[in-house]
Parts: sequence; structure tokens; C-alpha cells
Amino acid sequence: MVSFPDVEAAFKRIKDSVVKTPVMTSTTIDALAGSRVFLKCENFQRVGAFKFRGALNAVTLLSDEEKKIGVITHSSGNHAQALALASKKQNVRCTVVMPSSSPAVKMEATKGYGAEIVVCEPTLASRESTAAALIEEHGYTLVHAYNNPNIVAGAGTAAYEFIKEVGSLDAMFAPVGGGGLLSGTSIATKGLLPQAKVIAGEPKGADDAYRSFTTGKIHPSMNPKTIADGLLTSLSELTFSIIQKYVDGIVTVSEEEIVNAMRLLWERMKIVVEPSGAVSLAALLQICDQFEGQRIGVILSGGNVDLNQFFSHYST
Amino acid sequence: MVSFPDVEAAFKRIKDSVVKTPVMTSTTIDALAGSRVFLKCENFQRVGAFKFRGALNAVTLLSDEEKKIGVITHSSGNHAQALALASKKQNVRCTVVMPSSSPAVKMEATKGYGAEIVVCEPTLASRESTAAALIEEHGYTLVHAYNNPNIVAGAGTAAYEFIKEVGSLDAMFAPVGGGGLLSGTSIATKGLLPQAKVIAGEPKGADDAYRSFTTGKIHPSMNPKTIADGLLTSLSELTFSIIQKYVDGIVTVSEEEIVNAMRLLWERMKIVVEPSGAVSLAALLQICDQFEGQRIGVILSGGNVDLNQFFSHYST
Repeated sequence: MVSFPDVEAAFKRIKDSVVKTPVMTSTTIDALAGSRVFLKCENFQRVGAFKFRGALNAVTLLSDEEKKIGVITHSSGNHAQALALASKKQNVRCTVVMPSSSPAVKMEATKGYGAEIVVCEPTLASRESTAAALIEEHGYTLVHAYNNPNIVAGAGTAAYEFIKEVGSLDAMFAPVGGGGLLSGTSIATKGLLPQAKVIAGEPKGADDAYRSFTTGKIHPSMNPKTIADGLLTSLSELTFSIIQKYVDGIVTVSEEEIVNAMRLLWERMKIVVEPSGAVSLAALLQICDQFEGQRIGVILSGGNVDLNQFFSHYST
Repeated sequence: MVSFPDVEAAFKRIKDSVVKTPVMTSTTIDALAGSRVFLKCENFQRVGAFKFRGALNAVTLLSDEEKKIGVITHSSGNHAQALALASKKQNVRCTVVMPSSSPAVKMEATKGYGAEIVVCEPTLASRESTAAALIEEHGYTLVHAYNNPNIVAGAGTAAYEFIKEVGSLDAMFAPVGGGGLLSGTSIATKGLLPQAKVIAGEPKGADDAYRSFTTGKIHPSMNPKTIADGLLTSLSELTFSIIQKYVDGIVTVSEEEIVNAMRLLWERMKIVVEPSGAVSLAALLQICDQFEGQRIGVILSGGNVDLNQFFSHYST
């Protein structure tokens, strides 16, 4: 389990090395939601996503012996880059197992932060067995993307920093995939604002957390289909237990709602937010009638979008 | 002519009604430029561009009689929306002559701020004659997009606010089209930091300001061709005279340099900046060897980009 003092300690530990991301507001979004909406822009975080917070907390907390040997993870997404950069900052060797289906741009970025990339087949079984074999051989410490209390506590520092800046909120919205951000957010929010509701947004096409939350047992994510490619993973025992305890509701949103929320952020607020990052705003907009006139926090989790196609129209 | 006290007065006049736009920094851009780069994000300004500053200053300074009758301008771009919103805030009737080639989305936005739209042929002659006929008929006051001292002073408040926040700079970069932003920026910068260089970026495909600056007489913009669609206009007598006095150099940049700078801002900084807005950064990157280790200010002028094509890939 992870408790509020763990989040508080993580914040003290990492605050000088993470970006204190801005909180933005928009008269357009306030008018649409009928409430006062504060947006915590983790798309401006190092590596473009909140993931750096947890990775840095986890690497910092390794023993000297563990740091000497190095860390490993398997990820096709933002956690790979986050762990690579966090390791680089602590002079720790980092190996990332990436499925062969990972975008070349993400592999390059991870390599750019100094990590060693090991390519595997694009299945969870291959990711796990490849990582296990390397742990067996080298003794690396596995830093899982979310099934790790130090990652959860680090992820919770976004909401902690957010509330310390804006003060009281009536509700806090965050997206849910594996549940690292949501569980950390819920601990931080209930710790600072016990009366505030914590609500997750989840794509309808990957609604395993919603089904798990509703039925009281973990449903794995089976053939998820959504543009929110950061939210394809299943809850872990750790994140599910926290979510059951602290989260008030999970709202599922359609692909169209995700795109509309993302477009609002790009067009009206001029910020680049990835589909997964806009799911929390999409959830608020769906149920905003319940929060009329209230003060709402929304975590925008990241901004890593493939812009090749967009910029190909500009090629000269 | 416009002087530094005019900019200072404009700032006091409008500061509570404009967005105090954030100044952002990026380790990636610092590394590329070899200097400490501060980016003034006017893409976060009301209506998505610095233009709101000048429009609000100009409308505020109208006489009661002029306010009662109303204002008019001709514009296909950001100035149209800026004047419409500034007029709405002051309860002033606003008419905008827009060429029939204007994007529907810009016409809608301008109408959304309460302006009356009059469509004309897509030529400068038609724009000017249509506006002149309406002025003759109704007595409206023309608020030109940049050939207006109150617009220039208002535009200068972006650099004024910027320098007041970040302190000393060795150089200030801004884009140049009609010269409103550049002339205002140069007055504010030389007023606060007499030693700082003021340098403009201009697209090679619309290099009339560069040719005017080099030859000492205004060259009109003839058949400009660039993706930086906010920089197609020619200097006016007013802006040219200020630029001759205060600007230290104009750097012309290729379309590829503009796209690369824009992409850097979107991908690494997660902010939506329009091509015209990225021209200042492109100029810095071209001549950054001259400023190694120095403190550089860069004005990102706006963020209004048509995202229809991008989001059509996401349509569901």
C-alpha cells in the first residue's frame, strides 16, 4: 500500500528535479463545463508526461547496490523515456525492453537519454520473459511502470503540487490506464482535501478499470481499442486496491469525446496534449452538470503525439 | 511616431484585460541555440495572438463620440478577431471587411465576438474601397492592423511585460510582417534595455521588410509566398520609420527553417504556435553563433493554425 506521507516524502525528494508544471485556465472551457476548471499541464513535464515523477522517485530510492547494477523495465511508451532520463540523472544504468512495434521515434528518444534498448516480440509475454531473462543474467532491478509503490507515490506528486498551488477543489479528474496516476492522485487528493471527489476518465474501448471498479475484481484489459494509446494496460493488485479505497467514480468516454476534448485543448488553449491526456477533460465534460459552479481540477497527463503526418503537410 | 512612454502608458491601460502570457524555457532549445532562451508565449494571448494588445489599446483610446459610432477594419487574420473582441469589451460596434478568401473558421470566430462581417473581393484594393465606402456612409473610425500609433504602442506591451519579468536580455527577436509587433517591440526593448539588440525574423518568400531595411526605402510585398500567412503584408510609413531607428537587423529564413522551428515548439515544448509565430525562433537558430552564452528573448506571436486536416485523421 501507499499512504499520503509517502506522496509527501516523494514530493520533497523530487521537487527540485521535476518541472513545476503550470496550472492553466480557459474561459472557453469554464463556459463549456459550467464550473471553474484548473488544468494541471503534465504535458510540460520532462519527457512530456507525468511518468518522470514516479520514475525519478523510484530510481532515487534504490539502494547503492541496486544503483550500481542498474534498472530495467518493459514499455513501449512514456515510462520508457521517463525511466531512461531518471536513471541518467542518477548515473544508473538503464535497460528498456521495447516491443518491435514501438514507434521508431520513441525508441530513439529512449536511446537518446542513454538507455540500452532490447527489442522483443510485441506481446506482453515476450516483454516479461525478455526482461526476466536479463534480470536473471545481470541482477537488474525491475521498475514496473505502475505496479510499484514508489512509482505510485511519485505519480501522486502531480496532484499534490497542483492542490498546493490552487487550494481547495470540489473534484479532481485523472485518466486511468494501469492506474499509477489515478491511484497516486487519489491518495494525494484525499490526503489534502478529504471532501473532494476523485473521478477517473477511461476510454470506452479500454474499459477494464471501469469493469474492475464496478464488479470489485480485476478484469484484465482484453483487446483494447482506442486512440488513447497510453491507457491500454490493466490495473495491478496495488493500483486496484488504492482505487477501490479512494476513487469515487470512473466515467467511460467515447473516441469522439476524447478527440473533442483534445481539439479543445489544442485549438483554444494552444497546448499539445496526447489523446490519453485529454481523457480526464472528456470525462469532466460528460458529467459537468453534476459540478455546476464548483472548482474542478483536471490532470492532463502528457503530450507525446506523433506529429509526422501533420508536419508532412508542411514539408517544403 | 510612437515613443517609449506611449508603450508604458498602453501597458498600464490594458494590463488588467490582457493575458499576462507565460515566459517559457526549454533545455532542448537552449542546447540548440547555445544560449539561454526565453520565449514569450503570445499564442496564449486572448484570440490566440499578440494582436489583442494593440486592438484593445486603440479601442480604449477612442473618444466617446468615436465609440458611439463604431470602428471598422479590413483583415483576413488575427487582427479581425482582436478588434472584434476589443470592441465587444468596450461596447463598441465593430465592422470587419474580410476578403472572400478568408477561412470560414476565422469569419465564424470574428462573428462570434460580435462583429459585423462585410465580405469583399480578395484584393487589397477591394478591401480598402469597401472599408472607405462604409466609413463614408456611417462615419466609422478605421483601426488599421498596424499603421496606427496606438496599435504599435499596444503591440509593444508584449516586450515590455516580457522584459519586466525576465530582466536583462542581450537580444530580442520578433517576426516582421506589417511591422506593428516589430516596431512596438523595438521601442519597448530599447527603452528598457538600450544595449540589447533587436532582431527581426522574416520569411525569405516575403522579404519586403528586409529589402526595405537594406535599401532605406519601403518595398511593397509583391506576390509573397510563405506558410507564414501572418507575415504577408508590407511595412507602413509609421512602422518603417520606427524600424529604421531601433532595429539592428533582419534575418530572412527559409520555409524549411520555419517548419523546423515550429515543429520544435510543438514536439518539445508542447505548445501550438503558428508558422508566423515560429519565424522569430527560426531567425535566432540561424544566427545563434553570434549570441553564444547570452540571454535571448524570443516573441512567439500567435498560435492560430487550422487543425482540421490534423484532426480529420482522428475522426471516429
